[in-house]
Amino acid sequence: MIKLNIKTTSKVEIIDITNVIKDAVSKLNKNDGIVFVYVPHTTAAITINESYDPKVGNDILDILDRIAPNNLKYKHIEANAQAHIKASLIGSSIMLILENGEIKMGKWQGILFCEFDGPRNREIWIKVI
Amino acid sequence: MIKLNIKTTSKVEIIDITNVIKDAVSKLNKNDGIVFVYVPHTTAAITINESYDPKVGNDILDILDRIAPNNLKYKHIEANAQAHIKASLIGSSIMLILENGEIKMGKWQGILFCEFDGPRNREIWIKVI
Amino acid sequence: MIKLNIKTTSKVEIIDITNVIKDAVSKLNKNDGIVFVYVPHTTAAITINESYDPKVGNDILDILDRIAPNNLKYKHIEANAQAHIKASLIGSSIMLILENGEIKMGKWQGILFCEFDGPRNREIWIKVI
Repeated sequence: MIKLNIKTTSKVEIIDITNVIKDAVSKLNKNDGIVFVYVPHTTAAITINESYDPKVGNDILDILDRIAPNNLKYKHIEANAQAHIKASLIGSSIMLILENGEIKMGKWQGILFCEFDGPRNREIWIKVI
Repeated sequence: MIKLNIKTTSKVEIIDITNVIKDAVSKLNKNDGIVFVYVPHTTAAITINESYDPKVGNDILDILDRIAPNNLKYKHIEANAQAHIKASLIGSSIMLILENGEIKMGKWQGILFCEFDGPRNREIWIKVI
Repeated sequence: MIKLNIKTTSKVEIIDITNVIKDAVSKLNKNDGIVFVYVPHTTAAITINESYDPKVGNDILDILDRIAPNNLKYKHIEANAQAHIKASLIGSSIMLILENGEIKMGKWQGILFCEFDGPRNREIWIKVI
């Protein structure tokens, strides 16, 4: 697999990693298959959504804060229970189609890394099958 | 990959596409593998759930409206921020097991296409690996 | 595919199945690929999250109860609409990377089976590609 490093800079944050993923996959010189992108963390996630307007990502973060507010009383005592919950709602991996050496996505789609308990040094694992 | 077209007819809507997917995959004459079903849109999604009673889909839509109501003030100004958020909560792809030429699912499971910002002409991409 | 059986004992419950999955996959003697873990039910789900502190799972269940409370009026009349909704929010499958004969996960990650309408006898399907 390929391991990429990503440094987040805020407590909660959405980062467009579309080009990072495309560049990493293109170096494998694979023509056809499925690209599996995996986040090996429990307080971060990955999703596909509009990346053209970054405000879409902000709205996603705002609604996730409504769902799992910081000031709720949680059982997990590390003060990041809300980040764990958000991670399971969004999910820790995505899959993409690779054809003719290119990752195929819809016109408005981008790959968004979701930091819910930063800032931290994060990893992204990629495997093409 | 196979590209299927689907025409939605409402603003928000869940459409049972189980047979559409099964028919498309059966034409590939593949015996064994994983079926990847991908929605190349940012205001639609795909999920696996009960398709026998369509009211299950209605309940899913109702709860998503509670999570991301139409009348909330969003930062994204195209009046469809709620549709983007719902797409990331449900997800843009599913995977299924193919064995002996058949897609294997649980007894009550169906494949549900989720329109959150229709009506529109949508695509579904399928790749078997 | 491998079929595993799991017996849940509560109405809603999160069960750490990391070792069950790892053991099942190790018996296949496969070295490299992607592990697909599929839940063939519509009122249960699977997610990756922290398994070290079981309270993380409890917090996930609590927030899902806030999102889809038991006492809401649902259209589906089997009194388990909330379980169906939770299943689509969390998702019915996960994927994992297999390398050198080992499932690769982040330090704090575990595989969590989510029962939303138990107690029941459940199945988990695994396919390695």
